[in-house]
Amino acid sequence: MSSRREKFGLWMVGVGGRVSATVAVGVSALKRGLTATCGMVTELPALADHDLPEPGSLVIGGHEVRSQTITESIREMHELSGLIDSELIRRCSGDVHKIEANVRLGTLYGASKAIRSLVGRDRATEPTRPGDVVKRLTADLEEFQHQHRLDHVVVVNVSSSEPPFRIGPTQRTFESIRRSLGKSGSRVLPASALYALAAIEAGCSYINFTPSLGIAAPGLEARAAQRGTLYAGRDGKTGETLVKSILAPMFAMRNLQVLSWVGHNILGNRDGAVLSDPKSRASKIKSKDQTIPAIVGYQPDIHTSIEYIRSLDDWKVAWDFIHFQGFLGTKMNMQFTWQASDSILAAPLIIDLVRLTVLAWRRRETGPMKHLACFFKQPMHVGEHDYVTQWRQLVAHVNSDGG
Amino acid sequence: MSSRREKFGLWMVGVGGRVSATVAVGVSALKRGLTATCGMVTELPALADHDLPEPGSLVIGGHEVRSQTITESIREMHELSGLIDSELIRRCSGDVHKIEANVRLGTLYGASKAIRSLVGRDRATEPTRPGDVVKRLTADLEEFQHQHRLDHVVVVNVSSSEPPFRIGPTQRTFESIRRSLGKSGSRVLPASALYALAAIEAGCSYINFTPSLGIAAPGLEARAAQRGTLYAGRDGKTGETLVKSILAPMFAMRNLQVLSWVGHNILGNRDGAVLSDPKSRASKIKSKDQTIPAIVGYQPDIHTSIEYIRSLDDWKVAWDFIHFQGFLGTKMNMQFTWQASDSILAAPLIIDLVRLTVLAWRRRETGPMKHLACFFKQPMHVGEHDYVTQWRQLVAHVNSDGG
Amino acid sequence: MSSRREKFGLWMVGVGGRVSATVAVGVSALKRGLTATCGMVTELPALADHDLPEPGSLVIGGHEVRSQTITESIREMHELSGLIDSELIRRCSGDVHKIEANVRLGTLYGASKAIRSLVGRDRATEPTRPGDVVKRLTADLEEFQHQHRLDHVVVVNVSSSEPPFRIGPTQRTFESIRRSLGKSGSRVLPASALYALAAIEAGCSYINFTPSLGIAAPGLEARAAQRGTLYAGRDGKTGETLVKSILAPMFAMRNLQVLSWVGHNILGNRDGAVLSDPKSRASKIKSKDQTIPAIVGYQPDIHTSIEYIRSLDDWKVAWDFIHFQGFLGTKMNMQFTWQASDSILAAPLIIDLVRLTVLAWRRRETGPMKHLACFFKQPMHVGEHDYVTQWRQLVAHVNSDGG
Amino acid sequence: MSSRREKFGLWMVGVGGRVSATVAVGVSALKRGLTATCGMVTELPALADHDLPEPGSLVIGGHEVRSQTITESIREMHELSGLIDSELIRRCSGDVHKIEANVRLGTLYGASKAIRSLVGRDRATEPTRPGDVVKRLTADLEEFQHQHRLDHVVVVNVSSSEPPFRIGPTQRTFESIRRSLGKSGSRVLPASALYALAAIEAGCSYINFTPSLGIAAPGLEARAAQRGTLYAGRDGKTGETLVKSILAPMFAMRNLQVLSWVGHNILGNRDGAVLSDPKSRASKIKSKDQTIPAIVGYQPDIHTSIEYIRSLDDWKVAWDFIHFQGFLGTKMNMQFTWQASDSILAAPLIIDLVRLTVLAWRRRETGPMKHLACFFKQPMHVGEHDYVTQWRQLVAHVNSDGG
Repeated sequence: MSSRREKFGLWMVGVGGRVSATVAVGVSALKRGLTATCGMVTELPALADHDLPEPGSLVIGGHEVRSQTITESIREMHELSGLIDSELIRRCSGDVHKIEANVRLGTLYGASKAIRSLVGRDRATEPTRPGDVVKRLTADLEEFQHQHRLDHVVVVNVSSSEPPFRIGPTQRTFESIRRSLGKSGSRVLPASALYALAAIEAGCSYINFTPSLGIAAPGLEARAAQRGTLYAGRDGKTGETLVKSILAPMFAMRNLQVLSWVGHNILGNRDGAVLSDPKSRASKIKSKDQTIPAIVGYQPDIHTSIEYIRSLDDWKVAWDFIHFQGFLGTKMNMQFTWQASDSILAAPLIIDLVRLTVLAWRRRETGPMKHLACFFKQPMHVGEHDYVTQWRQLVAHVNSDGG
Repeated sequence: MSSRREKFGLWMVGVGGRVSATVAVGVSALKRGLTATCGMVTELPALADHDLPEPGSLVIGGHEVRSQTITESIREMHELSGLIDSELIRRCSGDVHKIEANVRLGTLYGASKAIRSLVGRDRATEPTRPGDVVKRLTADLEEFQHQHRLDHVVVVNVSSSEPPFRIGPTQRTFESIRRSLGKSGSRVLPASALYALAAIEAGCSYINFTPSLGIAAPGLEARAAQRGTLYAGRDGKTGETLVKSILAPMFAMRNLQVLSWVGHNILGNRDGAVLSDPKSRASKIKSKDQTIPAIVGYQPDIHTSIEYIRSLDDWKVAWDFIHFQGFLGTKMNMQFTWQASDSILAAPLIIDLVRLTVLAWRRRETGPMKHLACFFKQPMHVGEHDYVTQWRQLVAHVNSDGG
Repeated sequence: MSSRREKFGLWMVGVGGRVSATVAVGVSALKRGLTATCGMVTELPALADHDLPEPGSLVIGGHEVRSQTITESIREMHELSGLIDSELIRRCSGDVHKIEANVRLGTLYGASKAIRSLVGRDRATEPTRPGDVVKRLTADLEEFQHQHRLDHVVVVNVSSSEPPFRIGPTQRTFESIRRSLGKSGSRVLPASALYALAAIEAGCSYINFTPSLGIAAPGLEARAAQRGTLYAGRDGKTGETLVKSILAPMFAMRNLQVLSWVGHNILGNRDGAVLSDPKSRASKIKSKDQTIPAIVGYQPDIHTSIEYIRSLDDWKVAWDFIHFQGFLGTKMNMQFTWQASDSILAAPLIIDLVRLTVLAWRRRETGPMKHLACFFKQPMHVGEHDYVTQWRQLVAHVNSDGG
Repeated sequence: MSSRREKFGLWMVGVGGRVSATVAVGVSALKRGLTATCGMVTELPALADHDLPEPGSLVIGGHEVRSQTITESIREMHELSGLIDSELIRRCSGDVHKIEANVRLGTLYGASKAIRSLVGRDRATEPTRPGDVVKRLTADLEEFQHQHRLDHVVVVNVSSSEPPFRIGPTQRTFESIRRSLGKSGSRVLPASALYALAAIEAGCSYINFTPSLGIAAPGLEARAAQRGTLYAGRDGKTGETLVKSILAPMFAMRNLQVLSWVGHNILGNRDGAVLSDPKSRASKIKSKDQTIPAIVGYQPDIHTSIEYIRSLDDWKVAWDFIHFQGFLGTKMNMQFTWQASDSILAAPLIIDLVRLTVLAWRRRETGPMKHLACFFKQPMHVGEHDYVTQWRQLVAHVNSDGG
């Protein structure tokens, strides 16, 4: 089979973080047969018959703005969160070191103060024009693809959340974006969008697993259309919002009126530290608040809050309280507590997204991959938030054709 | 429209209980415009276009073995549970009194000790042969239909749970059942099945909202086929199991392995008191334990327990703990607490079931109504336990035809 | 006994609110033998032997800035929250109407925007000098005492929370306060403190059941010392903080290190609406955050949040998550959910505080009643936050003497 | 100081289990300065000034009926529960191996079927007369003390729970016990009591950290009195019951009536497996059910259940629901979930108990150590279950004298 000889790359923006660390160990552990495929949806029978690339065959690299290595991130997860067994870490360390050779310096251009302060100091003297930043990032991607003789590279943004970015007239066309990119000090695009543009220019596919802007500006999508780029996003649906998108339809299907839905999230890793910045948090909360009204068809009283609790490290605890009304005006309630590690939940989905993007690339699809909506809190160009419907659309799309 | 002049009856077995009380107040309140249709699935847009009978137009009657009146049940719900507003009770009391005129003495033939002790004493000198009991019950149904000039009557079992009943060779054919019915003291069928047979013989439809046997013996289903009876059951899916049938697919669709699922239910009304009898409880727990394995496709460690807590009265609190495994063997967990009134949740579904049965009757359907699976914990002749799939099958069936 | 002929008054600031409404119904229900003394600590054997005034003998009045009557507040509690039985309301309505005759217009002088907007419009043309406001409030208290021939009146602040008020040099002596009171438009004291000063001047005792300033300015306490005023506060400890002050000592006594303690409160009545104003909320949260560090002796990571959720009305739901570390550095956790009505919890404590204040008054005690610390989140002049220790101090003080 | 040269032994019955494993690692880690004293109450300032033996100086040995080694138990805790860091295990392994040299074969004489089946096979040919078993166990203790030149040995029962044992006339005096011990096949005492008697005869102190009988037969206590034995028990109060004994006083002190208190415990290690035997469970539940009524002074509706959930391994999850009534008959509720490892909680308390027993031994105290009540669910000869009161009694006793 020709597909056996194809080689694919996974390039993660924020490769020094916890999600990337888990992907790195996971890909190695899968290759060495040290772990099962639990958590990977592409291993489910409904999606399995498509000769997807073996996770262990993926070549991994990425951009990172901090000096922390993947190895250090893995060790932190073990020591602070009790995640990832030390024996597994030992056996995968060689593979992880190889990945570390593929790490390139990211950009802080247009990054929020919260992210800058995490980095500690500006590690690089950034170019003064954003267009020059894009050129450097693009060159990194091209070098990666060339050096490892990769048939295709998928860029996945797993870096910390940026504050919300307001789309204005300048971001509506690629022409006006391009003009601004040439201007010194221009704030035309936030860092996440510079990476996205680099992916487009380098001929890569692009996935945004965060609520940051990424490719979601009309001008960038227009450029993606010109270049035939595959892309998807935004904001991976790993935990509390996943549960919401499963549970809310129950109330709808039983005609029980949701009066209010309160979600309180506490988490402790770098994601949490960045979210303790009110602006970054706003971006995340906005992303979370769309789910319920889209499903039930009206606007209950929804409150979502996020707090940074250092001691939890990579664990997240979400408490949700749902106040609902049934027959004869009776008020009843349900509450749930979700205790899980976002990195552990996200990593297999990243691998899934790369495999499904490769499948779309082989089928010569282009543009927004709407069938990947079930992976995201804010699926691009998709209004459907009901998880089961999203899932069936994924299965139908994948099995409709080729492969 | 001719359907405007049609008249339908709802006959509840266990009409003195809390669910019936809520149905009685609810039907009156809907007729008088005093409450909304919240909790009724037949009012959802997906099911609404079928000229279903108005809830307020249903004529209600039923069998009861205890001396407690519907009015007393309603008052208890208000005083002990804070359910059903006293002003609403006052305004509906006239309608409720009319229903009370349609209550007939039920049978304790073959009833469990737990149920007998609730009754206090055997109110009736039961016939010695079960066949004679069936004749009496049938006559009650025929009298009800005739007296109120009803086009059709739907019998719904909402009485307390019986202990599990083991189907043997005698229950496999209607012939052998019929022979045993003529024998004095025969235990060929439990009380719930005698009511079901009476419904068949009287030309009524039959719904079993409890885990008791009801119509679920091959010999009885054979008789139903001869008589063209419509039927459905068993065990209304109102609370914790509903949530399970919504949540379990999430773990399946995300390839997260459910290690164990513990459910602890505490409740306090007569349902709880009967379930404090270990035999009745066994029947209920068995019914609840089927859901998860059927959905995830393997057998996690499942424990379901039920305790009678008098102070809760009509409120039920269910705590579920789900232990699951994700990527890299990581153990994570979710827990939920459900606090609701089963009677309040069940009542609108009873009205839905009657309306949907009338629709099937108008369409000249017969036999088990498999499309009603989403209403039941143990849907008869249906292996599907995923709520969303069940719901879509209901919507598809209802909208496929006639109306 | 002479005490039989003594007559005492309870004057509530914010008498139109939910707590006052519950006190009003409660006092009437106790007088008429329609309810038990559940929730009243002065009925516990440890405190019972002191010939305290019968709750039913208290004469009630109060200040209110809104036009809502007590009767309306009671009806809202029934209709929106399912609290207070309608039959009880009916039987107590005569007594409640008598109380309504003792309601006087409160002051909005120095009130926050949040409170002003709740009132809808300024009902009164306020005097321009705060000293004139105090005079009017004082006259109301004197008239109440005189009209009902009361031996003593206890003023209790149960009105909505004010934003935090910063004590400056002006508030440090009564002389400088007095000077400022005479200045037109002076912001020397917030509304809650004007009421407190009126209580001092009218010879009443003063209890602050809210986190507002009240009497807690050095200059006001100096005036109270001159006048021999009895007082206590601040911020009634009714729910989540009560649980904290009971649970935190467990971790301390077992040498388990509290890493973080997160509390998320959702509530829906006017208290909640006022707290949805960030400034008022700050005052409340600050009050709640003192408990844990004071008990465990170090500073864990503490987050307390409050959200207004209209549908809950008078119910409050608090979720607390406690992350703690045990032997060998093991991280473990406990979480609790508290679902209760603050008004129902507070009302009997108000009655207790009045009875205990009368006891102190009879014993000719003066100044801050430190022995009442167990009733408050921020007990004045008391550093002890451990509930059990506070409780033992109350019992010891009450039983040490007189009676 | 002479105490510096004293040497003390800790002999654990069930030394192959999880609690013992944690004690073994813990003592080594403390000696080597690799962990803090978190979880040890004797390190609290209130108890610290008594020159207690250093944990690291304790010589450890024990009886075990299974072939599993301490090292294997430690590895299981790491692999199945994520407890005890692998680096710590490595550094303490030498000390643990030394302890393993002090393990002697325990007895299955009179053990329950549940415990026998865990052992797999009877490893030893037991003597036919229980008296001979006691002699062998006593000899093991004497050899341990002599070999290591120990000043005193404290025997602590941390083995699996036995079924409840009914005390009859034979167990009332030591004379009748002694006679029965000489009879072949006599069931006069369960295994736990044979160990206790061996401790008495060998001149050791005895602590029962389980709900098994141990020393709690009048005839054995009489023998302990003759021999001047120090002892305490039963059933370590580590988790859910600890919380109960802290929380229940809150309801009592606030005059809130506890209507029902439901506790559902799920756990997964050997303790859980033994408790899946209904008889052993009965013993445990009985022990847990005493706390609430003893504290509140009346009998609420109390249900405590325990389920064995293999996947939890050493973690225990307890869910408690408390239904309570406040002012005006209002029903409210609180629930909590406790997620912790019993072994991690128990181990430091075992060390505490040994240290406090040594202190009592130095002070020449004898008989039941009632001041240790706060460590136990069923404190021997103590009716007080309120944790705070128990704790104050401990502090007062320890600081009253000598040291």
